[in-house]
Amino acid sequence: MDRIDGRTPAQLRPLTIERSWSKHAEGSVLVAFGDTKVLCTASFTEGVPRWRKGSGEGWVTAEYSMLPRATNTRGDRESVRGKIGGRTHEISRLIGRSLRAVIDYKALGENTIVLDCDVLQADGGTRTAAITGAYVALADAISWAQGKKIIKPGRKPLTGSVAAVSVGIVGSTPLLDLCYEEDVRAETDMNVVCTGDGRFVEVQGTAEGAPFDRTELDALLDLGATGCADLTKGQLAALAE
Amino acid sequence: MDRIDGRTPAQLRPLTIERSWSKHAEGSVLVAFGDTKVLCTASFTEGVPRWRKGSGEGWVTAEYSMLPRATNTRGDRESVRGKIGGRTHEISRLIGRSLRAVIDYKALGENTIVLDCDVLQADGGTRTAAITGAYVALADAISWAQGKKIIKPGRKPLTGSVAAVSVGIVGSTPLLDLCYEEDVRAETDMNVVCTGDGRFVEVQGTAEGAPFDRTELDALLDLGATGCADLTKGQLAALAE
Amino acid sequence: MDRIDGRTPAQLRPLTIERSWSKHAEGSVLVAFGDTKVLCTASFTEGVPRWRKGSGEGWVTAEYSMLPRATNTRGDRESVRGKIGGRTHEISRLIGRSLRAVIDYKALGENTIVLDCDVLQADGGTRTAAITGAYVALADAISWAQGKKIIKPGRKPLTGSVAAVSVGIVGSTPLLDLCYEEDVRAETDMNVVCTGDGRFVEVQGTAEGAPFDRTELDALLDLGATGCADLTKGQLAALAE
Amino acid sequence: MDRIDGRTPAQLRPLTIERSWSKHAEGSVLVAFGDTKVLCTASFTEGVPRWRKGSGEGWVTAEYSMLPRATNTRGDRESVRGKIGGRTHEISRLIGRSLRAVIDYKALGENTIVLDCDVLQADGGTRTAAITGAYVALADAISWAQGKKIIKPGRKPLTGSVAAVSVGIVGSTPLLDLCYEEDVRAETDMNVVCTGDGRFVEVQGTAEGAPFDRTELDALLDLGATGCADLTKGQLAALAE
Amino acid sequence: MDRIDGRTPAQLRPLTIERSWSKHAEGSVLVAFGDTKVLCTASFTEGVPRWRKGSGEGWVTAEYSMLPRATNTRGDRESVRGKIGGRTHEISRLIGRSLRAVIDYKALGENTIVLDCDVLQADGGTRTAAITGAYVALADAISWAQGKKIIKPGRKPLTGSVAAVSVGIVGSTPLLDLCYEEDVRAETDMNVVCTGDGRFVEVQGTAEGAPFDRTELDALLDLGATGCADLTKGQLAALAE
Amino acid sequence: MDRIDGRTPAQLRPLTIERSWSKHAEGSVLVAFGDTKVLCTASFTEGVPRWRKGSGEGWVTAEYSMLPRATNTRGDRESVRGKIGGRTHEISRLIGRSLRAVIDYKALGENTIVLDCDVLQADGGTRTAAITGAYVALADAISWAQGKKIIKPGRKPLTGSVAAVSVGIVGSTPLLDLCYEEDVRAETDMNVVCTGDGRFVEVQGTAEGAPFDRTELDALLDLGATGCADLTKGQLAALAE
Repeated sequence: MDRIDGRTPAQLRPLTIERSWSKHAEGSVLVAFGDTKVLCTASFTEGVPRWRKGSGEGWVTAEYSMLPRATNTRGDRESVRGKIGGRTHEISRLIGRSLRAVIDYKALGENTIVLDCDVLQADGGTRTAAITGAYVALADAISWAQGKKIIKPGRKPLTGSVAAVSVGIVGSTPLLDLCYEEDVRAETDMNVVCTGDGRFVEVQGTAEGAPFDRTELDALLDLGATGCADLTKGQLAALAE
Repeated sequence: MDRIDGRTPAQLRPLTIERSWSKHAEGSVLVAFGDTKVLCTASFTEGVPRWRKGSGEGWVTAEYSMLPRATNTRGDRESVRGKIGGRTHEISRLIGRSLRAVIDYKALGENTIVLDCDVLQADGGTRTAAITGAYVALADAISWAQGKKIIKPGRKPLTGSVAAVSVGIVGSTPLLDLCYEEDVRAETDMNVVCTGDGRFVEVQGTAEGAPFDRTELDALLDLGATGCADLTKGQLAALAE
Repeated sequence: MDRIDGRTPAQLRPLTIERSWSKHAEGSVLVAFGDTKVLCTASFTEGVPRWRKGSGEGWVTAEYSMLPRATNTRGDRESVRGKIGGRTHEISRLIGRSLRAVIDYKALGENTIVLDCDVLQADGGTRTAAITGAYVALADAISWAQGKKIIKPGRKPLTGSVAAVSVGIVGSTPLLDLCYEEDVRAETDMNVVCTGDGRFVEVQGTAEGAPFDRTELDALLDLGATGCADLTKGQLAALAE
Repeated sequence: MDRIDGRTPAQLRPLTIERSWSKHAEGSVLVAFGDTKVLCTASFTEGVPRWRKGSGEGWVTAEYSMLPRATNTRGDRESVRGKIGGRTHEISRLIGRSLRAVIDYKALGENTIVLDCDVLQADGGTRTAAITGAYVALADAISWAQGKKIIKPGRKPLTGSVAAVSVGIVGSTPLLDLCYEEDVRAETDMNVVCTGDGRFVEVQGTAEGAPFDRTELDALLDLGATGCADLTKGQLAALAE
Repeated sequence: MDRIDGRTPAQLRPLTIERSWSKHAEGSVLVAFGDTKVLCTASFTEGVPRWRKGSGEGWVTAEYSMLPRATNTRGDRESVRGKIGGRTHEISRLIGRSLRAVIDYKALGENTIVLDCDVLQADGGTRTAAITGAYVALADAISWAQGKKIIKPGRKPLTGSVAAVSVGIVGSTPLLDLCYEEDVRAETDMNVVCTGDGRFVEVQGTAEGAPFDRTELDALLDLGATGCADLTKGQLAALAE
Repeated sequence: MDRIDGRTPAQLRPLTIERSWSKHAEGSVLVAFGDTKVLCTASFTEGVPRWRKGSGEGWVTAEYSMLPRATNTRGDRESVRGKIGGRTHEISRLIGRSLRAVIDYKALGENTIVLDCDVLQADGGTRTAAITGAYVALADAISWAQGKKIIKPGRKPLTGSVAAVSVGIVGSTPLLDLCYEEDVRAETDMNVVCTGDGRFVEVQGTAEGAPFDRTELDALLDLGATGCADLTKGQLAALAE
């Protein structure tokens, strides 16, 4: 099967990770998975929410949003509608959980990092691009705080790295990193979030059409793990610059 | 390892499915997974939302909610707060997707079924109990509409059955159908939704503590599939009464 | 005149009061007035709202809600609409005022009790069933706190009991405890809340059709007082178990 | 007992009804019960809400609100808080029901009248002043529509008049038309809404302190009926100008 | 050109400023610019918002609103819609900024004054009438606080006076203080806010039809400054009573 | 006086206008005024809002928003707060009015263009950058529709161009195009919106500190007009590419 953009089934879209995109944020990354572009900023503030005060532990949370015309037809702003939709809630929570999986709260100390992931242009896989980019912004914000000695010397709030990718079955073939057109046609859609050492942080698979069997599930997990490993290399390369 | 309530690792909690609980709804089920009790009602209405009119196809959707004192400490009502939280959104969407996986929209015709899953008492696994009970309420509502000839004779809107269960790793042991105390202690938590013929509709696994490896993931998937098969039997038995 | 369910004009529907319905709440009662079923939970927490701190006095408040399919046709959730309707507000306030009428705030001490009254199935008289059931849940929560010594020994926060019933004029006949079909046809509708010693806490009469004269009003008040006295017996019997 | 403003127990505060207060509304009345001042406007529009279309019947509804500094200390605007409070809802509903009690929907035809009752200055009894003033605004709006032939000649949408007054027991004495200071001290508070021919439209009595007995209730009902009769005279006089 | 109400182009509508309109507020003014009537109340409270505590400085803010039937056709209440519209926000902010321009925060001390400007009847120029009336209410509230010694003796929180007027070009002629019918027909509309000594606090000019050139802009500024000077005289006269 | 970034008082910051920034929108521009970066997308849809149907005329509207970390400290999302703030409302309305000033609704036909202006990075002057960039996006969207023949051949919906700039008095010197640090220190702040032929569409001047006199106002208007003329050249150059 030929993919719409000529990729092989197990091939990622071109990945770019542009660090220090914004002059204000402690970490800021414009990440692109092909035509999907997400601006990820990490805002570091001293102090923690009320329910965590005095614990000696920090907090990391995330908010995801799409610009109204990030997609092919304009969507209403959630601020105008006056409420956040279920999809936005779900993705924000996923990003937050994924990044917290590589955080040592004690080492972070009573500091808070908020990851804002704003989709500037969408072409499938916005949540996985967001996680992948947010990790780099998070690493930069932590380096910034270490440089400022806000995080005590010798402490390592990051216990590893995290990346994410979508996989799906389109016309019986398992494909890596679906673009929008593939995503629409997928019978099964899965998001896989892995640490840099190849373990799973989150696995979310959904039958869009017919239910899937264990063999298909296994193939998707294999593909997702491979894709995350490739993304991890891209993150390391970006952070090495 | 001894489980808190004396179960073996692969044992479900006592399952009860009380049909026709309410006099008003076309389908209504009080489902219990041990101390978790969820009232699932299926409301059948002729007609579909505006975006689906004229398609000849029906629609199925779900809303999940918890009574304020379903849990150990009272939670604020979402109606009083004026907005629905992320967790509620996420679970409502999961229930809706799970049930739509066994619906043939054409056979349903331009009719809508809303599944309301209200947790009266919570002790872990409320979303999986909700899916399992909602399926029975859905089947009853469809029978009702077939009896009334609102669904045309010979049409079978249900393509199969669906059930769900939580699995998790607690102290290195994979456990089936976690109660609240186990859920709190779980390192990894997964919800598995399967059809009656043993295929997967949805798989959501999350590392609560350390990331999990493929071996652990496989063990959880095995356990979840087994648990769903047991629940399917319970659903069939209830529907046979 | 024959009533739809064969009762005499001054006869209550079958009353059931099931205590300790929920394992979590300090008091929990499933009350039924015929087919009207309301789950009343009393949540006891130490401390009071900010505006009452340091007063040495407690607080009691109530929230009423209906499950979406408690009624014959499904109603939208107020959480989804993002606001609480006027009817809900009005009934929540009525329940709160009714229960506060039998509370000695000083004896309660700086503790708060929230009564949640959730209608699981509606067939007229939901607010009066809620008040009647909530009183029993309140009594149980207070006993719980006395048992835990959170309320000081010898203190009696309850100054009496409270019950409520609806009355109305249907086809010129005053009827007690209207079911839904009677309620719809009533020319005049009144809710009467009485203490166990036969005094009035709240009287709310509304002309649904033609205005009513003093003779009709007097007949309704008589009937309501009698009905409350019968309900009081039911409460006492339930609390004696 | 001497009342704070020198009135006898059964004496109303000075009543003024200023018609045509606003140049825009079809009916507009500035009503004063002593220092309580409410601007009541009646907005007449052709057509009815969707659920009433084609019925040949009209609709009348009401909205009540207080300016932020109508009271002794400033209250937040409900528009700023983003939601309407329970008290506002309750009073709006009471005003609407009270005025609908004297409306013949058929005679009104498919037209809608909205009564806006905005409290400019509050000193107790704002809801009863609102009902009393809104009736006059309603009558003026109906006259306007009759003059414009929007209501067909010969049709009389008003079946009578309606007025309302508060009564209460302060220091064991039943008092008519409580001002704010009396209202705060009242053990029992009742609002009585009567038609011009002396029948009851709504009776709402609440024990603020100790529950009240039937004798007290009877005394309050007598006083309320008398007060409404006096207010009816004031309404007639105003409409005769 | 003849103006609709017979005024000359540079003539204000009749101005009335009724002080102490309400018995509760520390300052309260019913201001009329012809048929435009705005009730302006100034609520003085000790203390400041959290973000200003400990600064030794006070705060002044404003809220503007229209009664639903202040205009020719009824508008929905913003409290019912659950949110404040853009126009209301914009005008509230303009009034606040205009009054703060004549406040010495240090002299005010840690006290807050809220100006509520509620339009009872609208006929164009509601925001400028609001600013002009609110200044007088503000001056009264400050006098009240000086009388109570809440503002320390010798301190003068007011550094000057402020007034506002609308100007516009209708049919090529610059006109002062537009009434509603003129406002609708204006090609260019400008609001001018000046201090009593003739300097500008705010200038907001908008091309409603064709863009305007510098000559027109200059003519409008001249007219606005003259109008504000006339209004200043009216304010002084009112405060001298 | 030396400006913080070395500019002369009447010098704009470096202007860049990047067209076709997004692959989805009919017009999309990333505009930069120095470090202020705004993504402006123009979404063209056939049809108009309900209130304009059948008029034969089109509609143009705008929404402005800031990403949470566009500024030096993170701001809460308006979608999370559940309501749009006054500043956002005010700026959205200004952008909409400014662009509508150069639109011929008849020539546009019954089509709607929504301009979304999302600030990715803020350094003062975000609303003026938004207007300037949105004009270019608008022109591109109109060209797109002309190319698709959605706008009938020969029709010219644009009657001119529009650009905007901020001016202010800092330390007695009138400065063009204030960056954030200058804006904070400005005694007077003005936004000037001009058409390409040098006429004014909107003028908004505010005294941040002391009120300003006519001489200062005139100097600011001169400077603003000059700045807009320079920006117009930049727009033309971008559109010529």
